[in-house]
Amino acid sequence: MASKMHLPDDRYFGPDPRQKEVAQRLYAQVANLPLICPHGHVDPRMFADPDYSFGSPADLLIIPDHYVFRMLYSQGVPMEALGIPRKDGGTVEKDHRKVWQTFADHFRLFRATPTGMWLTHELFSVFGVEEKLCGESAQRIYDQIAAKLATPEFRPRALFERFNIEFMSTTDAATDPLPHHQAIRKSGWKGRVVPCFRPDAVVNLDAADWRKSIQALSAVSGIEVKSYKTYLAALENRRAFFKGMGATATDHAATTAYTGELSVRQAETIFRRALAGKATAEDATLFTGHMLMEMARMSIEDGLVMQLHVGSFRNHNPLLYERFGADMGADIPTAGEFTRNLRPLLGKYGNETRLTLILFNLDESTYSRELAPLAGHYPALRLGPPWWFFDSLNGMERFRELVIETAGLANTVGFNDDTRAYPSIPARHDLSRRVDANWIAGLVVRGIVDVEDAEEMIQDTAYRLAKQAYKV
Amino acid sequence: MASKMHLPDDRYFGPDPRQKEVAQRLYAQVANLPLICPHGHVDPRMFADPDYSFGSPADLLIIPDHYVFRMLYSQGVPMEALGIPRKDGGTVEKDHRKVWQTFADHFRLFRATPTGMWLTHELFSVFGVEEKLCGESAQRIYDQIAAKLATPEFRPRALFERFNIEFMSTTDAATDPLPHHQAIRKSGWKGRVVPCFRPDAVVNLDAADWRKSIQALSAVSGIEVKSYKTYLAALENRRAFFKGMGATATDHAATTAYTGELSVRQAETIFRRALAGKATAEDATLFTGHMLMEMARMSIEDGLVMQLHVGSFRNHNPLLYERFGADMGADIPTAGEFTRNLRPLLGKYGNETRLTLILFNLDESTYSRELAPLAGHYPALRLGPPWWFFDSLNGMERFRELVIETAGLANTVGFNDDTRAYPSIPARHDLSRRVDANWIAGLVVRGIVDVEDAEEMIQDTAYRLAKQAYKV
Amino acid sequence: MASKMHLPDDRYFGPDPRQKEVAQRLYAQVANLPLICPHGHVDPRMFADPDYSFGSPADLLIIPDHYVFRMLYSQGVPMEALGIPRKDGGTVEKDHRKVWQTFADHFRLFRATPTGMWLTHELFSVFGVEEKLCGESAQRIYDQIAAKLATPEFRPRALFERFNIEFMSTTDAATDPLPHHQAIRKSGWKGRVVPCFRPDAVVNLDAADWRKSIQALSAVSGIEVKSYKTYLAALENRRAFFKGMGATATDHAATTAYTGELSVRQAETIFRRALAGKATAEDATLFTGHMLMEMARMSIEDGLVMQLHVGSFRNHNPLLYERFGADMGADIPTAGEFTRNLRPLLGKYGNETRLTLILFNLDESTYSRELAPLAGHYPALRLGPPWWFFDSLNGMERFRELVIETAGLANTVGFNDDTRAYPSIPARHDLSRRVDANWIAGLVVRGIVDVEDAEEMIQDTAYRLAKQAYKV
Repeated sequence: MASKMHLPDDRYFGPDPRQKEVAQRLYAQVANLPLICPHGHVDPRMFADPDYSFGSPADLLIIPDHYVFRMLYSQGVPMEALGIPRKDGGTVEKDHRKVWQTFADHFRLFRATPTGMWLTHELFSVFGVEEKLCGESAQRIYDQIAAKLATPEFRPRALFERFNIEFMSTTDAATDPLPHHQAIRKSGWKGRVVPCFRPDAVVNLDAADWRKSIQALSAVSGIEVKSYKTYLAALENRRAFFKGMGATATDHAATTAYTGELSVRQAETIFRRALAGKATAEDATLFTGHMLMEMARMSIEDGLVMQLHVGSFRNHNPLLYERFGADMGADIPTAGEFTRNLRPLLGKYGNETRLTLILFNLDESTYSRELAPLAGHYPALRLGPPWWFFDSLNGMERFRELVIETAGLANTVGFNDDTRAYPSIPARHDLSRRVDANWIAGLVVRGIVDVEDAEEMIQDTAYRLAKQAYKV
Repeated sequence: MASKMHLPDDRYFGPDPRQKEVAQRLYAQVANLPLICPHGHVDPRMFADPDYSFGSPADLLIIPDHYVFRMLYSQGVPMEALGIPRKDGGTVEKDHRKVWQTFADHFRLFRATPTGMWLTHELFSVFGVEEKLCGESAQRIYDQIAAKLATPEFRPRALFERFNIEFMSTTDAATDPLPHHQAIRKSGWKGRVVPCFRPDAVVNLDAADWRKSIQALSAVSGIEVKSYKTYLAALENRRAFFKGMGATATDHAATTAYTGELSVRQAETIFRRALAGKATAEDATLFTGHMLMEMARMSIEDGLVMQLHVGSFRNHNPLLYERFGADMGADIPTAGEFTRNLRPLLGKYGNETRLTLILFNLDESTYSRELAPLAGHYPALRLGPPWWFFDSLNGMERFRELVIETAGLANTVGFNDDTRAYPSIPARHDLSRRVDANWIAGLVVRGIVDVEDAEEMIQDTAYRLAKQAYKV
Repeated sequence: MASKMHLPDDRYFGPDPRQKEVAQRLYAQVANLPLICPHGHVDPRMFADPDYSFGSPADLLIIPDHYVFRMLYSQGVPMEALGIPRKDGGTVEKDHRKVWQTFADHFRLFRATPTGMWLTHELFSVFGVEEKLCGESAQRIYDQIAAKLATPEFRPRALFERFNIEFMSTTDAATDPLPHHQAIRKSGWKGRVVPCFRPDAVVNLDAADWRKSIQALSAVSGIEVKSYKTYLAALENRRAFFKGMGATATDHAATTAYTGELSVRQAETIFRRALAGKATAEDATLFTGHMLMEMARMSIEDGLVMQLHVGSFRNHNPLLYERFGADMGADIPTAGEFTRNLRPLLGKYGNETRLTLILFNLDESTYSRELAPLAGHYPALRLGPPWWFFDSLNGMERFRELVIETAGLANTVGFNDDTRAYPSIPARHDLSRRVDANWIAGLVVRGIVDVEDAEEMIQDTAYRLAKQAYKV
């Protein structure tokens, strides 16, 4: 018989009784606020089809979630045993009960990890599971989840309402005609799900299939992209389309934060070289750095908030990439530099109050050294919440501790769940609200802020900052 | 009606009752010790003129303090609205009541920041303000401060005595004839205010107006600087003059910690190229690195303590620099490297017990990785307190936590307030003493040190280390 | 009269009463478990000779321990005054009572340092000292230690049993014929002391006396090393010999984590250039990076666990190196990079479950940024415990806080004492067990793990992980 699931009401608060009391009071004020989800990766198809089904428990919780399977893989569990499809169509485990059993047998690996915290919360509060997940309880819990997933209450739209989501942005390629978002709007369903303009595939010259993406850009925009000038026009066209579909933001990913302006002639030359299939690695770097500046300019013009995610070395494991493709838990952070890299962009556009540039980063050593001083000075700059590996209890505490003294809370943007694991959304927001309540309670009991300020701060972190920064 | 100002007696101590009790006992032992201010930027003119007046509350607390106005600027408040003078003489707000109102309307931005803590302490304990600063209370508080500033008790010399300052060093250009320090000495006033020799403007070949500064150096030293050799002689002459005026230290700023010795011939060649206005960027780097070594040599000879401040990218925002000049809150830290950069200097002079080299840095990742191991080995090296953005509650806690285990407390130098905001000095020392009391109390309650050791340590951090390291 | 030595039973646990209670319960479950010492530098001669004597208290505790004397040196105490032998045979203090007195006079320097904690524990629990070490008590304590050292209970083998050491690995040159290990095995003594294969001197082409080491390699292996091919054969021969002597692991040190495969022809060319005394610095870098890959390949074949220690700039102080030699407390960490540097090795061998690569590092900024994400993905990779300067109370807490959320506990390897200071071993393990108990108790009182999981975790950190990872 498995133990009882462990999810105490006062979880994640510090142990000091006075701090905990204040934390609980602050948390209670925001625990049930609607969720603002301004950056994430949920599939909009879920909401377009009112009868969308999540499949099996393994389909929902294991197979698509690289946070989960990377940990088992790191301990020698083959990807195939977890049902991860191979690119070559090779045999993988098809029996989802077996996949689930393997997962449950290794669930101890998630002790003290954010994935463990989210899954525990999710199993309990979304699926009503009350016993601890382990090898012995695995199949009972599988049955329980599978039964729930078969009911109408577990359709995505029903959960959207149950989760109390006020606003959700997906992340979509610049060339995406957004059929699901169109279907959502036409359906009359009231859930507010909007797209986000992510042009990496047409901006990064070294992206796989860049030329194909440019062809798609021509097709979707109706502007034949045959020069740098027509390329800019097509991008502006797409931004307008996304904005018309409700988008409030764009998103850009880059290995480094390098920015730098090219002359129109230089940009044209590189662009044509790329069209001819002859762009160099240096071309790609220079062009991305230039296009970040162009995107800032367009944001000033059309009002879309600009997000920049920096620092991931994608697909670090060549064997896994070849066998399973991208997003297999093998993206590894690298050291970051912002002071010099962002200077061209901030020097030109950083004083613009019409621009909101939200920065995400995977090198915590830059928090206090570069990011907080930059955000505490430039009107255009805001800092995104701790990203990816740092979207965790300790990661959020470090962010608060390292950033706020210099940047001030107002130069941050609240929480992003940034997830494709839809049913984990309430767990993620709840963890964040608890960590912030605990942090602010710490400020109260140390005499740093009074209760009046603390109550404003928790509203900011849980709800208001995200809504304001993303122009929701 | 505004709330009561929040400044509890037990502020900044951790919430654990036992730790807090020990912290309060330790703090009580040093709370009223005299202040040693061995590095700062207070204007010596204040003390030269017995009738010096601070002007309006905005003149005192806002307009000269880039810690304050950068935060409002980051949230879209124009510099002009805060009364910051433009270089082109363009219109800025002249009504200091309006400037103050704008500041008060945004005072919430300083929640949980060191500037917020200092200002709160300062308003309360220097000016007797008892209500919280906000838009509603702004004008009443303005009146209260303005009334105090008009009284003789608020002349700088009177505050110096009230603040219980035992020693204060200003920071002065190598070419400064130090008229205010001379006036102070002649006046018979007993306050100990001494200069610090800062030769950056004549050492860094890429400093604005380097050649003008060299002319000034010739003039003030009486040694015509026409070669590297006469240049060294003039510097030695100035050091002797500063020392005669009471200086105990020099100060040097550099973007990186690069050091390296040139041959006399190389130094002469570069110096003459610079005199001819033809020095390159590489010349500047090499020459600064060489002169740091020369300054160490001179310190061994004349006994002046050598300070080195490394890591700030100055004037990052070109628009602001052009419009308002330097020191506008746009100096941003960069990643640091010390192990390789300091090796030439430490290899040659680091074993010298006659040298004290105090290092300040803006990259906290070097604390445990490089600085503590270096300071825990080389007899000449000491670590300055957390600097600038890190002179904060969390910053000081991180410094203690990251540095002391490896470097030992004896290789640090106590606290520097490093400020030009004169009335904030008691608040800054008080915050530091509280944070240290809390840190040491944590060591006591965790059984790491006994009370006997703890009582020695708090005396060290609050008073003795600064006095010893700076040869006060 | 000196104070009582300060070593409370509840030391190193946090002050919160509930957390402390849980921590004490967890600690009690592992406090008396046998010690696994899978990486260290104890001299095997100690165990080969049943009558081995440690010499004087200074011989045992001061003269060989650079952790100790570097701190006194940093405060101006000459190495000579501490009895450290000079390479030129120059005069050093021969009176060990005087050396001890100098040490005791400065013992305050170790307040709040790991060396201070270890020494205090060691004096009390190994030598029964009950008064605090200071100038006044120095000679009494010297007498007490000296008396103990003269007894049979203080022979190394007797202490091995008293310390409850289950397994100890020394660290030995690839060319070492391991006479002491052979003597231990022949002696019939049951203590399990095994060698570890460390080939740096024959792998790093820029090692002092590389060619002499190659000659020794030929001699000891019986394979004439005259080519890259014979070199590999000789290394494989030595690995087999070490394995036969009980070794379970190899160890490799490098300034950076650079790895990269050369073609056999390239390797041969560089190797022959080195044999001819003409290898360049670039050759050395390339060859070390290549040999790390070869060592991984050999580990896959022979099953020896591979350890890699990265990041120390050795012998930073030229004066000290010239006068006293290596290991004088002047090894200083440098910034690390793993994401790109380890990619060749991990790309080729990281998916191999037959390989265990344990990584040690001196740049804490890589913990959360690079090491935890890498270890949380690659099956072959494990993270060694906090190394050197970071083998400390705060260092261990940071490691747990920065690593576990992403890597999971199972991708770490428990504790290494990594010491040549034999009698400090119980103190080091005890500190580690207390810090882990406190960390896990923190997880319990914050509701992150339940007590059931906590009890598994403390067994893992104190005993099981080390045993499993090192194949003990």
